[in-house]
Amino acid sequence: MPDDFVTIDWTDDGAIRLIDQTRLPLEEVYAVCVNADEVARAIRTMQVRGAPAIGIAAAMGMAMAARTIHAPTFAAFYASLEEIGASLVRTRPTAVNLAWAVRRLLRVAQGLRNVPLAEIPGRLTAEATAMREEDIRINRAIGKYGQELVPNPARILTHCNAGGLATAGYGTAVGVIRAAAEAGKHIKVWVDETRPLLQGARLTAWELARAGIPATLITDNMAGHFMHRGEVDFVVVGADRIARNGDTANKIGTYGVAVLARAHGIPFYVAAPISTLDLSLNTGAEIPIEERAPEEVTEIGGRRLAPSGIRAANPAFDVTPASYIDGIITERGVARSPYEESLPRLAGEA
Amino acid sequence: MPDDFVTIDWTDDGAIRLIDQTRLPLEEVYAVCVNADEVARAIRTMQVRGAPAIGIAAAMGMAMAARTIHAPTFAAFYASLEEIGASLVRTRPTAVNLAWAVRRLLRVAQGLRNVPLAEIPGRLTAEATAMREEDIRINRAIGKYGQELVPNPARILTHCNAGGLATAGYGTAVGVIRAAAEAGKHIKVWVDETRPLLQGARLTAWELARAGIPATLITDNMAGHFMHRGEVDFVVVGADRIARNGDTANKIGTYGVAVLARAHGIPFYVAAPISTLDLSLNTGAEIPIEERAPEEVTEIGGRRLAPSGIRAANPAFDVTPASYIDGIITERGVARSPYEESLPRLAGEA
Repeated sequence: MPDDFVTIDWTDDGAIRLIDQTRLPLEEVYAVCVNADEVARAIRTMQVRGAPAIGIAAAMGMAMAARTIHAPTFAAFYASLEEIGASLVRTRPTAVNLAWAVRRLLRVAQGLRNVPLAEIPGRLTAEATAMREEDIRINRAIGKYGQELVPNPARILTHCNAGGLATAGYGTAVGVIRAAAEAGKHIKVWVDETRPLLQGARLTAWELARAGIPATLITDNMAGHFMHRGEVDFVVVGADRIARNGDTANKIGTYGVAVLARAHGIPFYVAAPISTLDLSLNTGAEIPIEERAPEEVTEIGGRRLAPSGIRAANPAFDVTPASYIDGIITERGVARSPYEESLPRLAGEA
Repeated sequence: MPDDFVTIDWTDDGAIRLIDQTRLPLEEVYAVCVNADEVARAIRTMQVRGAPAIGIAAAMGMAMAARTIHAPTFAAFYASLEEIGASLVRTRPTAVNLAWAVRRLLRVAQGLRNVPLAEIPGRLTAEATAMREEDIRINRAIGKYGQELVPNPARILTHCNAGGLATAGYGTAVGVIRAAAEAGKHIKVWVDETRPLLQGARLTAWELARAGIPATLITDNMAGHFMHRGEVDFVVVGADRIARNGDTANKIGTYGVAVLARAHGIPFYVAAPISTLDLSLNTGAEIPIEERAPEEVTEIGGRRLAPSGIRAANPAFDVTPASYIDGIITERGVARSPYEESLPRLAGEA
C-alpha cells in the first residue's frame, strides 16, 4: 500500500519539493525550497512537520546549501555548514530528530575532510537521500513490530499526525495502523482532530481516506467519552523526543489521552524511530517545550474565534511520563519498562 | 458585579429578545422571537443555549404562545399549550431544564382551569418572568455556596460556558468564579475552548473579560498538561442533567476533564440548580445524549477543515460518573456522595 503522495523529495534540478501541509486537505500543492533559509521557513511555518520529516528536511536542506558554500578550506566549509545546521535546529526546539539529522550530516562531512572540497556536497546529498529512503524502511519495520500488538478487530485511536506526512512516507503511528490493515486485520480508526493546528482533522484523516482505512474524526475532548463507552481498543501515537527513562514529548494533548487510556485499561503505545531517542536527557522534565503564537488558539485559518484581548496559552507539546506508556515501538523492536534499560539496549548503547 | 449584557428578556411589546450566542464574541447582536416556532429554532440553532437559559426560553416561549391560542374551552387551550411545550422539549434532548420548565408552566396552567381563559396568558407570562428572576437569585446562591470551596489564590479551570449566557444571568459554574472574585479571592481562570462549538473561547472568555476576571484560553487538550504542571487548583463545570446517583451529563469533554482532575488530585465540582436534577433516572446511563450534525466537527464557521467524505462523530454531551465528582453545588447547598441520599434530600423529596 504505497502512499500516493510524496512528503518530501528532490526536484530534478536539486531543489527540495515538499507537500505544503498548511494547505492540506483542501489543496494539494507542493512548495519548492531552493536554499536553507527557505527550508528553515518551511519547517517553522509547518509546511513540513512531524519529527522524522523535519529531520529529513534539515538533512536535505544542509546538503542543498553545501553546494553553494564557497570556502577556500575544509575548516571554512565546515564552519559554514555548522552555521547552516544551527539555523535549521533553531526552527523548532522540541523534536530531537532535527538535531540528530544535522549532527549526522556534520559527522559525514567531518569524515570527508581529506576529500576534495568539490566532492563533499555530492556526498552529503547522497547521505540525505539515503536518510530519506532509510526512513521509509524504518517506518515499515515499526509497522511490522507494532501491528503485532494490535488486536483484531480493533478500534484504534491516534492523536495528531504521525503518518506518511510526518515522515518520508508510511508513517510511525499511522504506519502501525497501515501495517495492521495490510495484515488483514479489521481496523477502524478514531482520529483526534488535534487542536490547535488540526493535524488529525487535516492530515491523518486525509491520509487514512487515501489508504482506504475507515476513520472517524472526533474533537480531542471526545476521546474520553468513546473510551468510557468501550469503543477504543488501542492507542498509538508518535513522538517528538523520548528521554532515557521513556518519558515522551509529543503533540499537546497526548498526555491527556494517555491518562484516559490508563483509566480505561486501554493499551497506549508510542511509535517512533530510534532517532527520536535523546539518551542525553534523564527524564522528560529536561525536554524543551515549544510555545507557539497564541493566534493559533484564538484564530482558525485566519478567522478570529475568541474575543480580542483574551490571553491564550499555546504549548505545542506535552510530556507523557513513561509510566503511562505500555511500550515504545521502534524499528528494532518494542521497548518495555524499565525503559532506562530497554531504550539504551535498542539504541545499541548498552 | 452585575452582568452588562442580558441573555434573555421580554421586549416592550411582549416578544422575546435574546443575545444571539452564535454571533458572539465578534458581534453583539440580539435576536427577537415572536412565536414558539422562532423560540424552538433559537434553541435548536443554539442562539440561546445552556441548560437553565433554554429552560427559561421555553417557559417564556410558552407564555408568549399562550396569548395566541384561540380555544373555546380550557381543555382545548391546555391541549394546545401541551403541544407547544412538546415542540419546545423536542429541540434538545439532553438538558432536563427544558422539560422541567415546560412542566412547570403546564402545572400553573392546570391550576388556572377555573379562571377566565382570557386571564391565563397573563398569569403564565408572570410565571415565566418569575422563573427568569428566580434563576438569577438561584445562581447567586450557587455562587455563594460554591465560592466557599474555592482556595485563595486559585487557578480555576472551567469547560464550556456555564455562565451568565447559559442562564438568566450570573451563571452557575461561572457564578462560582464570579462569587469567589467578589469575595476578594485571587482568581485566575483556565478556559477550555470547548470544541466543536467553542463556547469556552467564544462565550466564557467574553464573559470573564467583561467581568474583569483574568482568564487564559486553552485548547481542550491542554488541560492535562497544565494539571500535570501543578497549575490548576480547582475545576468547576455546569450540568445539563444530573441523575439520582449524581452521574452528570454536561458538554462533551467534561468527562475527560473529570478523569484528569482525579488523576492529579484536583477538586472537581459541578454547579447546577435543583431544576437540573432528574431524580426519575437512577444513573447517567439513562440520560439521552444528543448527537449533532457532523459538520460542526468538520467545519468551523462554515469553513471546511477536514477532507470531504470523512466521517465525524458529534455527541454534544458526555456523562461524568458521580465517583469523579467531589460535590454538586446547588442553590440549597453542596450535595456530597452518596448522592442517592444527598440529592433527593436537597430536592425536598426525602
